[in-house]
Amino acid sequence: MWKPDRKSNQPLYQQIADDLEQRISYGEFPPGSLLPSERKLADQLGVNRSTVVLAYAELRSLGIIESRSGSGTRVSRTKWGATPKHTPNWHRYAEGGNFLPNLPFLRRIRVALEQDPSIIDFASGELAGDLAPIDEINAIMNEKQNTSYWGYDNPQGYMPLRQALVSFLKEYRGIHTTESSILITSGSQQSLYLITQCLLSPGDAVAIEDPSYSYSLPMFQSAGLRLFRLPVDERGVQPEDIRSLFKKHKIKMMFINPNFQNPTGTLLAEERRKKLLDVASELGLPIVEDDPFSLTAYKGTPPSPLKSSDAIGSVLYIGSFSKIAASGLRVGWMVAPHSVVERLADARQQMDFGLSVVPQKVAATFLESPFFDPHMDRLRSTLLYKRDLIIEVIQKEMPDLVEYHIPDGGLHLWCKIVPEVNDTKLLDAAIQRGVIFVPGSVYGSDSSYVRLTFARARTEDIHTGISRFAEALRSTLEIEN
Amino acid sequence: MWKPDRKSNQPLYQQIADDLEQRISYGEFPPGSLLPSERKLADQLGVNRSTVVLAYAELRSLGIIESRSGSGTRVSRTKWGATPKHTPNWHRYAEGGNFLPNLPFLRRIRVALEQDPSIIDFASGELAGDLAPIDEINAIMNEKQNTSYWGYDNPQGYMPLRQALVSFLKEYRGIHTTESSILITSGSQQSLYLITQCLLSPGDAVAIEDPSYSYSLPMFQSAGLRLFRLPVDERGVQPEDIRSLFKKHKIKMMFINPNFQNPTGTLLAEERRKKLLDVASELGLPIVEDDPFSLTAYKGTPPSPLKSSDAIGSVLYIGSFSKIAASGLRVGWMVAPHSVVERLADARQQMDFGLSVVPQKVAATFLESPFFDPHMDRLRSTLLYKRDLIIEVIQKEMPDLVEYHIPDGGLHLWCKIVPEVNDTKLLDAAIQRGVIFVPGSVYGSDSSYVRLTFARARTEDIHTGISRFAEALRSTLEIEN
Repeated sequence: MWKPDRKSNQPLYQQIADDLEQRISYGEFPPGSLLPSERKLADQLGVNRSTVVLAYAELRSLGIIESRSGSGTRVSRTKWGATPKHTPNWHRYAEGGNFLPNLPFLRRIRVALEQDPSIIDFASGELAGDLAPIDEINAIMNEKQNTSYWGYDNPQGYMPLRQALVSFLKEYRGIHTTESSILITSGSQQSLYLITQCLLSPGDAVAIEDPSYSYSLPMFQSAGLRLFRLPVDERGVQPEDIRSLFKKHKIKMMFINPNFQNPTGTLLAEERRKKLLDVASELGLPIVEDDPFSLTAYKGTPPSPLKSSDAIGSVLYIGSFSKIAASGLRVGWMVAPHSVVERLADARQQMDFGLSVVPQKVAATFLESPFFDPHMDRLRSTLLYKRDLIIEVIQKEMPDLVEYHIPDGGLHLWCKIVPEVNDTKLLDAAIQRGVIFVPGSVYGSDSSYVRLTFARARTEDIHTGISRFAEALRSTLEIEN
Repeated sequence: MWKPDRKSNQPLYQQIADDLEQRISYGEFPPGSLLPSERKLADQLGVNRSTVVLAYAELRSLGIIESRSGSGTRVSRTKWGATPKHTPNWHRYAEGGNFLPNLPFLRRIRVALEQDPSIIDFASGELAGDLAPIDEINAIMNEKQNTSYWGYDNPQGYMPLRQALVSFLKEYRGIHTTESSILITSGSQQSLYLITQCLLSPGDAVAIEDPSYSYSLPMFQSAGLRLFRLPVDERGVQPEDIRSLFKKHKIKMMFINPNFQNPTGTLLAEERRKKLLDVASELGLPIVEDDPFSLTAYKGTPPSPLKSSDAIGSVLYIGSFSKIAASGLRVGWMVAPHSVVERLADARQQMDFGLSVVPQKVAATFLESPFFDPHMDRLRSTLLYKRDLIIEVIQKEMPDLVEYHIPDGGLHLWCKIVPEVNDTKLLDAAIQRGVIFVPGSVYGSDSSYVRLTFARARTEDIHTGISRFAEALRSTLEIEN
């Protein structure tokens, strides 16, 4: 983002006014549109609010912008000559459509991360730079490329990657499948989007875990689905709950994350897995099995997925590279009956005309390379180290304030805050102190939970991050009491 | 795709039966699902139909599949034991959702291209291997990579690519814009998808060109939009038509492809451009300007886009690499007011969590490299050569049968078949002879038009391709008369 030049002879306010005038003339802010508040713009540009006040005054004197008390500062409509010209009412257009905006908490977190790159990040559900196989991927990218065709690819995805996944799924997850049963997606998010948009209709009822990552996804509501809860205890969901939801609400599908569930970190117990498949096949009910974390099992023997015991094709299995290699590659996959794969591939063509072959090639090469196993070993041991570290620091900094279940895999620690606390206030206090996390209510849980991701922050920042969090928590509790 | 091994001692039918049994046991074809017809499977595997008949008989005798006359061959439901197990009714799920399937013609074309890679392709709207900057992209990919972070990227797209595009758009398209007004997408398809899904609501009326690429996109219908036509003559659409559509149907947006329009190849005349912008600003109506072909202008001076004269922010400008570099990169962009960019970026997060940084890096490097201008020069001269060649051959092979307007840019030749012809029959006859094109009705035009893309086929195949097409056309006309 542009910032004023403090070494220039031109005053800061004048630089800001010139930049804004240019942005307005380029159409970034059309006539009638709302400009950032003085405080917000000052934050973004790293200047005093008074400097922005001067810049806005300058533009106002030129008739470029108008301020009215209570409705903020807008680009002037009248400057544009005597003929009646109308900019489309973009604000109203942006409110249209079927798409709900992301949750306010998630947007707040994204903005905070953008504005302060030095903030200690316990919020982003991804791997730190030192956990991703960066050297390995760079080495693969540096191998001689001799692609001879750069055209549109098969709608199901790049064939060599599908072939590599057939071997990968058999060896690492006990899933027997074929290339034609695999759809390559840009990640679990796209897999879920395709399922909710193309296999379900508005008004359909679905069962999701409680708490669950699914609550953080407005895509379920955007698709007009009715959500019903399957409470997660320390052994996962209870299969019998499905039967009663089915009877009462005619649910059409269930979404399950059986291994190191996000956010709770729990494992679905063996006997419940069997029971779940039995109930599903008895009711003819599909299971969407989201399985991003299995391979992070710290002890190295990941639990078998439901899909590996799915004799009759009830399970749509979703996997991805994001949590075990690099989220920036944007490569995931789905295993499903051929008719489903064909339908979703056809719909995806209409949304984005398929994926780039470049990251798919990198992913296929990485999976089949000698880098893969050593990377996974290193990932597992580093995650275990970070998990132990965050727990050690929590025990030191705030043993009386939080409770948690120790996860055996995954990227997250799910914590209950023992005294009741308002999570909006806690988040504000944490951001002020330079640390960020995801409030539990994002996952449909009550306000006294937080998800602390220990995979994303640098190891050397974990102690400081937890100290800051503890301080934020104490100060929030003090103000409340 | 798997094919039986003709050198094996095991009979072909037995190999096919074994392979199918495995696919069924892996869930590719769940119990109750329909298997391919004997004829279709024989085609796919390159064997006689009688071999597939034997293979199916074998599986039937094992109780694995069942055939009923009139309803095809299905995977048996009863084989799976006495307990009442039900596979989800995937067929019904696949029919659900808001997503209409692609047009039958387009699916037919895709299947024909997959089944016969040697078919001469006048259908795919993309560049041939020898037109794409393959060596250049490989060279860029072979430059030393030293990415230090492989995490989730900014929802608006990779910043260095947005910066490169600000310069590119200014230099090549006369568009002045800022990084924060640019959204990187996976191509024009995703740009259009985001606009139709997020800025419009079901029931909204929009204006599209007639004929137009938009007709080929079920996404407009999937979004519940009502489509109204703006006839395209040899100088493009008539701005006054917009006004009357607005009065009658309260249209909310118009979709225009002013330069080398797909499929007609026409240029919107200068004075109509000015008028169009005036009408839009008078009515406060947004213009979606799809501009994939401008830089292919054979004379090298592409017409200015509407966006470059858009003083008040009425235009959403869409561009992409697909038609000028490589469709397989999947990199496109949109220029829009900041509030629109923010809204669409947020929605796209929910669909696919953003794009891979890998192709975005390649695209940014390519744009700023010394490769870009020489590539574009070569692209323009080769396209011109191919355009002249296809016209020369048409004049030789069927001068009396087709009429066309000679385009000054773009990838396509839009032809009117002079005697009336049924385009379904013509497509069948062409595919049989090893050549393929897109029937005009795909673009909402009447049956006697075809789009012949001359950019995709190899130069040395164009003559043979047109001969085959002429033969297919003559035989179709003979049968009809």
